[in-house]
Amino acid sequence: MNPWILYREGFDAKSAAPEESLFSLGNGYIGWRGNYEEGMSRPMGVDGCYINGFHETEKIRYGEIAYGYAEESQTMLNVTASQNIALYANGVRLYADQAVKTSRTLNMRTGLLTRETVYAIDGGELTLRSERLVSFDHMHAAAIRWQISANTPCSVRLSAEISGDVTNLVCVDDPRVGSGLKGRVLSAPVMGADGETLGMSQHTGHTHLAVACAMHCTCEGAAQEMTDHDGYAVRRIFDAQLGAQTITLCKIIAYANAAQEEEEKALSDALSYANEAAAIGFDALKAQQQAYMARFWESSGIFVEGDDLLLQGLRFNMYHLLQSAGRDGVTNIAAKGLTGEGYEGHYFWDTETYIFPMFLHVAPEIARALLEYRYSILPFARERAREMGHDTGALYPWRTINGREASAYYPAGTAQVHINADIAFAVKRYWEATGDHAFLYDMGAEIVCETARLYLDLGFYHARKGGKFCINEVTGPDEYNALVNNNAYTNLMAATNMAFAADALDLMRKKAPEKYAALKEKIALRENEAQEWRKAAQNIYVPRDEATGLVWQDDGFMDRKPWPLSSIPKENFPLLLHYHPLVIYRHQICKQADTVLAMLLLPDLFTKEEKETAFRFYDSVTTHDSSLSMAAFSAVASRIGDTRKAYDYFSETARLDLDDTHGNTRDGLHMANMAGTWVCVVTGFGGMKVSRETVSFDPILPDQLKGYGFSVWAHGRLIQVRVSGEGVHYKLLKGESITILDRGAPRMLSIEE
Amino acid sequence: MNPWILYREGFDAKSAAPEESLFSLGNGYIGWRGNYEEGMSRPMGVDGCYINGFHETEKIRYGEIAYGYAEESQTMLNVTASQNIALYANGVRLYADQAVKTSRTLNMRTGLLTRETVYAIDGGELTLRSERLVSFDHMHAAAIRWQISANTPCSVRLSAEISGDVTNLVCVDDPRVGSGLKGRVLSAPVMGADGETLGMSQHTGHTHLAVACAMHCTCEGAAQEMTDHDGYAVRRIFDAQLGAQTITLCKIIAYANAAQEEEEKALSDALSYANEAAAIGFDALKAQQQAYMARFWESSGIFVEGDDLLLQGLRFNMYHLLQSAGRDGVTNIAAKGLTGEGYEGHYFWDTETYIFPMFLHVAPEIARALLEYRYSILPFARERAREMGHDTGALYPWRTINGREASAYYPAGTAQVHINADIAFAVKRYWEATGDHAFLYDMGAEIVCETARLYLDLGFYHARKGGKFCINEVTGPDEYNALVNNNAYTNLMAATNMAFAADALDLMRKKAPEKYAALKEKIALRENEAQEWRKAAQNIYVPRDEATGLVWQDDGFMDRKPWPLSSIPKENFPLLLHYHPLVIYRHQICKQADTVLAMLLLPDLFTKEEKETAFRFYDSVTTHDSSLSMAAFSAVASRIGDTRKAYDYFSETARLDLDDTHGNTRDGLHMANMAGTWVCVVTGFGGMKVSRETVSFDPILPDQLKGYGFSVWAHGRLIQVRVSGEGVHYKLLKGESITILDRGAPRMLSIEE
Repeated sequence: MNPWILYREGFDAKSAAPEESLFSLGNGYIGWRGNYEEGMSRPMGVDGCYINGFHETEKIRYGEIAYGYAEESQTMLNVTASQNIALYANGVRLYADQAVKTSRTLNMRTGLLTRETVYAIDGGELTLRSERLVSFDHMHAAAIRWQISANTPCSVRLSAEISGDVTNLVCVDDPRVGSGLKGRVLSAPVMGADGETLGMSQHTGHTHLAVACAMHCTCEGAAQEMTDHDGYAVRRIFDAQLGAQTITLCKIIAYANAAQEEEEKALSDALSYANEAAAIGFDALKAQQQAYMARFWESSGIFVEGDDLLLQGLRFNMYHLLQSAGRDGVTNIAAKGLTGEGYEGHYFWDTETYIFPMFLHVAPEIARALLEYRYSILPFARERAREMGHDTGALYPWRTINGREASAYYPAGTAQVHINADIAFAVKRYWEATGDHAFLYDMGAEIVCETARLYLDLGFYHARKGGKFCINEVTGPDEYNALVNNNAYTNLMAATNMAFAADALDLMRKKAPEKYAALKEKIALRENEAQEWRKAAQNIYVPRDEATGLVWQDDGFMDRKPWPLSSIPKENFPLLLHYHPLVIYRHQICKQADTVLAMLLLPDLFTKEEKETAFRFYDSVTTHDSSLSMAAFSAVASRIGDTRKAYDYFSETARLDLDDTHGNTRDGLHMANMAGTWVCVVTGFGGMKVSRETVSFDPILPDQLKGYGFSVWAHGRLIQVRVSGEGVHYKLLKGESITILDRGAPRMLSIEE
Repeated sequence: MNPWILYREGFDAKSAAPEESLFSLGNGYIGWRGNYEEGMSRPMGVDGCYINGFHETEKIRYGEIAYGYAEESQTMLNVTASQNIALYANGVRLYADQAVKTSRTLNMRTGLLTRETVYAIDGGELTLRSERLVSFDHMHAAAIRWQISANTPCSVRLSAEISGDVTNLVCVDDPRVGSGLKGRVLSAPVMGADGETLGMSQHTGHTHLAVACAMHCTCEGAAQEMTDHDGYAVRRIFDAQLGAQTITLCKIIAYANAAQEEEEKALSDALSYANEAAAIGFDALKAQQQAYMARFWESSGIFVEGDDLLLQGLRFNMYHLLQSAGRDGVTNIAAKGLTGEGYEGHYFWDTETYIFPMFLHVAPEIARALLEYRYSILPFARERAREMGHDTGALYPWRTINGREASAYYPAGTAQVHINADIAFAVKRYWEATGDHAFLYDMGAEIVCETARLYLDLGFYHARKGGKFCINEVTGPDEYNALVNNNAYTNLMAATNMAFAADALDLMRKKAPEKYAALKEKIALRENEAQEWRKAAQNIYVPRDEATGLVWQDDGFMDRKPWPLSSIPKENFPLLLHYHPLVIYRHQICKQADTVLAMLLLPDLFTKEEKETAFRFYDSVTTHDSSLSMAAFSAVASRIGDTRKAYDYFSETARLDLDDTHGNTRDGLHMANMAGTWVCVVTGFGGMKVSRETVSFDPILPDQLKGYGFSVWAHGRLIQVRVSGEGVHYKLLKGESITILDRGAPRMLSIEE
């Protein structure tokens, strides 16, 4: 078993859809589900080609509506299909599910998906070898190469197509859900061509966005070729005689998108991109892809030793994150990346809280682009704050693509005001790890000030809580406890947000007085606002039992009715699919544990004893029905020295999608959990902490592992950490000498000559 | 000004729709909005004919769905139109909004709606005098009589129609709301006739209910008559020459309804009912109606002296309640009665908590029928309890027609579990006031046991609250504070429910051992269940501030952020139309005050000081955005001797619809508030309390009134109470001698010879 590789043999209708997610390719702009190019004889999976951020809206229908509800759904669209290549042998169409043998290989080291499929034909067998990639170097381009051979003479026809006849799953799904999109969402295509390169463009009805797709096809060994089209599809058709000779089809695909008013330009762009990629050629695209991946793996440097299944999971997870992250500053990372339609392609706090740290330390330029997206939607967050009754500040949407709130269930949506602090915390982390002044002054400070303002307006100093600053009627990350008072996670994160906003302003006033003055004017900062934030932050209320030191998840958590996990039938998990929300909210039970997460993100605010107490308690009441739960438990277990728990939870995060343990991998991969795997290793096992002053590590080694390692970018250096039974080894890979803290002790690292 | 009469002159487009509600007629089975028979030149109001309980369902669409949500909407349908009589003079159609003069009179003493309308015609005027009634004695029948004269020769045509071309307001309203009914909901009609009596039947697509309507028309003075029909309507058309002669049209209407499989029978029934009513004749129907109303006013005996506007309001409110109450044991009283489509014709707790007491003491047979309805839907309430995760007991729907939960917003729907106790409390009151053993043993006890079971399963004994019995995550009547713990109203009502269930079983065991045994078997009563209910009831937790004696609305009420009423702009009331639910829930503000309501319903559980403290506090934080609020405030103000507040709130309840103070009378009249007016007088001013042992009064007299009076049925007697500056006068009107308590002192009442 090669842990660089995901290999699956055979075809099984039941696993068709989840495997499409596992074998997805993407580059942060284009996403391709792992559909078989030649198609299946009947629908068994979910055909999907996505463009990050490309979406349609629709009025949300509510059973009962109230003031301030999100008005429009946002749905990442399945765009123009580009994978399709129909395959005929002796006039009979061959479908992937009818193959005699088939095997697929996703190579995480090279960024390539390959397949070998054997079909029975008259008198023998036809063998199809497919290679494909979505280019990291050329964001608009993807490519497929087919090599076909047969052990008996046979006439074949290949029909490579792009088709606008597509729809979304949600359009045909549950009639009770009000998204409202129905049938084909995209307009009938407008066709175009540039020489033999064929293309088409389509647009949406409400968002007025245009998408164009083009293909350039060649086929070595074809006897004859032609172009065909109908109202929705164009095709290049190649006829050939197999037997002695082998044929090779190369289909180069490109996408472009734009506002509808520039639909024509998008089409000509797509045609150009396809031609450019075709000029590069499949072999060169493949070589570039391999080089890109080599650089990525080198700078991440991650591994575990002693369990190849976990190593495979770790790589698989990081690989898919790389494929799903928008890098253009106006897109982000959907909850399922570009691998499926789950959560409608929406961006959540998952990005900042789970995924961002990995990019921050492995590919900081992507981390910055993710924050730029948040800055781009700040105007919508300001509008939303007004709708929610705040005269000042900004409230980021709980789930969104275009910047507006799209959650149709506010108790697990708009009520999750921690989203503001999660984003502000990412800004803080970015600043601490990179020292990127320009970003902080030009964008970051504005984000953190506007989010801080919202909390100040939301909360109040409450005499009955010792005059402390309280924030009521919110939902923390744990959606099994909704609309609570003083969620400890939310309060501490809000305090961190407010304090950092004040710090950022102090810094700017000193270091960049002109930018400070400009920001002050832009957001109409009042004279004493920063002091007010600092005061609220210092006086934040955190519910806890003084006797036991247990930090409560919220004011009411200890007043909920106990519901022992052992009393719940196995088949009733996840609870949200088997109990009314009222039943769940009434009980002392967690989907994920907010206090544990707070201890991961803000470790210095808790003593080790507090962490231990909280870990034990919440471990006993948490269902982990959220895929975001286990990484936090693993990392905090590491920090309290419970290496068994740390390893067990890590194992589960590492292979959640590979083993489809949540049973919904068909809808797409769980991006936040995937990133959590990295957190388990680096923050958990490795004990990395980064502030503006120091980079420190505090590694532990679970018994089950022989060792592990990772490299991180911090303070402009790439630092390698390797841990084994022999101890901890640090190495500076790039950048100037630096003094780090190793288990509290300073250690100077320099490039080894 | 005659306080028996509602009189309105002229026509004004703005008040057309609310006046339709005010001038509604009904008899608990049929409801007619006050539409003009001859119609309007363009739509200005809401045409409405309703049959109590006749409804259609539709899948509810949710923006985001979860387990256990109500699945289907229920909508009281606008059924076959029967008021219409088109009027032509010299070939020109006359519309009510184009009249020269018009005036309407609703006579609450006689149960008749009359109108005089003058139209300009060539060379003079045509005068229409309309009388109409919906018969209290003949539940299937209604009647209209037109007398038409002109002061100049004129040819007229009258076209009296019944029409199946009807729709509901909700079908054309807000596209964001998911009820899903669209266009014509009823099937195209099937026509029928019995001699000259014409009828039609229609049915629904989902509930498979059939409704039939028939009319019998005669016209004295007509020169010619004929029958006409199209696909949706049938008409009797009369032509006449006016001038020297006057003509009189009499249109007798009947409705019947049934399951769709009996649609034919419904049609023949409707035809028979119409013929029977026609045989009685308009004059006799009118005389019967007057006699019925005379009996009603005699047994209610209600009046206030010193303010005719309030007296008018009081009579208006009781009159409309009488018109809207279902009496057949399978229907109930919709929130807007049969006067409009607001709240989709759903039955709420409004019935038991606000309306039931009036019927209990004025028309106990109607009160019993209302409880029989609840018994009829007990099987659905059991099913609902299972869906909500309870292995035992029943959970009544928050809003319903057919017995299933129809609330599409659970925080102000299913979470209002107090509905169970409200119904049980009505059973208790009924038993206490009537001593009707048969009902208690055959139906009431089963209701109260099943509802008690639910509370026992819902709550728990909580160490952190002194081991008291706590009920969490509920919404009390006050919908501005949702999903709270230990709502004082809910807890106290639940305790009352549980204790009464145990009492009822004790009583049955002693008095009706066979029925006890049968019930025990039917509901699989466990041996110690009644003791468990009693224990929970005795240990119920009530949140309160021991220092001030203030009973808190719920555990968290004092932790909400203050929001002074004076700081809210006037135009932002009602808050729910101007603030997101989260904003409202986060603040210390009430739509209505649950604790005050608890003090009205359970006066003996609080000291006078507690009532005073609570009244002052909640009076300062209550918006009265609910029309259900003021009656409770008035009645409790009476009990603490604040006669000014008692009178002020009473005044507002008395004329809420007459003066359209909530601005939504167009959608129908506010039944619960209307009944609240009676509560203000009898429970508030009169201080009536009824237990199984005693009937007591404790009258006060507000300065603004010269006096007031009422009669009540209790313990099988009709007792008259009159209060004036000269003192309190009691008189036994019916029944055997009884000793009542007058301000604590026993007083023997006997029929005066």
